[in-house]
Amino acid sequence: MQEVLAASTASDWRVPDPANTLYLQLASGRVIIELAPTFAPRHVANILALVRANYFDGLTINRVQDDFVTQWGDANAGETNARSLGDVAGDLPAEYSRSAKELAFYPLSDRDTYAPKTGFVDGFPAARDNSAGHAWLTHCYGMLGVGRDNPPDTGNGAELYVVIGQAPRQLDRNIALVGRVLQGMPLLAALPRGSGPLGFYDKPGQRIRIESVRVAADVAVSERSDIETLRTGTPTFTKLVESRRNRSDDWYVVPAGKIDVCNVPLPVRERQAPKNPAQ
Amino acid sequence: MQEVLAASTASDWRVPDPANTLYLQLASGRVIIELAPTFAPRHVANILALVRANYFDGLTINRVQDDFVTQWGDANAGETNARSLGDVAGDLPAEYSRSAKELAFYPLSDRDTYAPKTGFVDGFPAARDNSAGHAWLTHCYGMLGVGRDNPPDTGNGAELYVVIGQAPRQLDRNIALVGRVLQGMPLLAALPRGSGPLGFYDKPGQRIRIESVRVAADVAVSERSDIETLRTGTPTFTKLVESRRNRSDDWYVVPAGKIDVCNVPLPVRERQAPKNPAQ
Repeated sequence: MQEVLAASTASDWRVPDPANTLYLQLASGRVIIELAPTFAPRHVANILALVRANYFDGLTINRVQDDFVTQWGDANAGETNARSLGDVAGDLPAEYSRSAKELAFYPLSDRDTYAPKTGFVDGFPAARDNSAGHAWLTHCYGMLGVGRDNPPDTGNGAELYVVIGQAPRQLDRNIALVGRVLQGMPLLAALPRGSGPLGFYDKPGQRIRIESVRVAADVAVSERSDIETLRTGTPTFTKLVESRRNRSDDWYVVPAGKIDVCNVPLPVRERQAPKNPAQ
Repeated sequence: MQEVLAASTASDWRVPDPANTLYLQLASGRVIIELAPTFAPRHVANILALVRANYFDGLTINRVQDDFVTQWGDANAGETNARSLGDVAGDLPAEYSRSAKELAFYPLSDRDTYAPKTGFVDGFPAARDNSAGHAWLTHCYGMLGVGRDNPPDTGNGAELYVVIGQAPRQLDRNIALVGRVLQGMPLLAALPRGSGPLGFYDKPGQRIRIESVRVAADVAVSERSDIETLRTGTPTFTKLVESRRNRSDDWYVVPAGKIDVCNVPLPVRERQAPKNPAQ
């Protein structure tokens, strides 16, 4: 994999759109999230509106369930002292899958337990059902989703979770996935597990404070994280996948010959200056 | 799932064999591990011998790589001040798969990306290749493996790792899996990630001390953890798998209809007293 990345060119990388990038600031550091409006436009619009209303500032991480999710939002949601959503829609229609038409879907050749076909769309792990003509994001490590109640049209983006364990693919098409953590997963995954039901912290003092959430576009350029991520769907990405499908390191005895969509690395790095800026 | 477990009977559960159960004691608590001599008898024998020589006591967790493994052993291994392995074999032949003959293999009907067939053997997630006649353990969350150097016959059980992220199934058949964590995963999975290469702690002070490792059979009965685990391969287990394959909770809109071997829960609980002990 290192060889593939070393041979990559500037055009193999892209800078995430600041208008769809969030900075989740904890005392321990910054978590960088890329949103996926292609799959969940209304949920993403809601989240951006909530962020711009400073809705999340001072709220808390309330749930860390081992091998499952880290979840944040208003610990008082549903109670009389809940923070107001303001003008933001309180319930959104389900955006759990979308038409596969006109979607640049990079397919993997490998079979998958849960979906007819898996692959990537613009850097996000995804799946497709050609017979139904649908595509959806897949619950891989680091994916961001919107919590909801039992009726499927009850999510609004005020309650968010990130996958921190084995991909819970049974959630696919049951809930809105809205993005992916590009950097800072250890800040969410290494938190103490909650000892209450479903991994909720059972004492308020255990909750972890969110200092702020900001849209990168709203942050001064000098304070933005200057990162880039490898494009999916390029010849370089194909080489990367193949290098992981059949590991040629001396260490391996039996290369797998296969890869799960959630085992494909999606590299993120500090943005590199062009090698020959004068040209 | 709760309904299936509530309807289970005493014979659906088994108490892990104390002779193949380890207690890894950290300042934060006890991690309980069940060893799998059926798959890696020589590696397990080595580990038991090392434990009984108190080899691990005072050694450290040296590596926590996000979405991959937590690993412990002698931070000075390979150096002149390394702790001696004593009489224990320094290198073992590969035990990465075994004959599938005479193995009570409980198969899942679901297709798998990496193996022709997956399922369970005595509570451990496993895979099988009927054409080759081989079976092996699979790298699911919580599985315990033996670190090795590049040549495949260089593992000995002094360096151990546990999976703390998305199942790294590409490791299957490349390294000896020797057991599974039955209880205490949060103590291994919520540790600070190492910032050195491969997630090794780059400062000695970051390492986490192992107070002791003991074989449960060597611990006074009063100090043992009195747990039991659901048998795999029973009609109750079949019901459990089905309840997770097609989630009937009100919350679900689209039951997956499939399940990955690493998404099947393997319940562990405090041992229940028989309901009618007099009968």
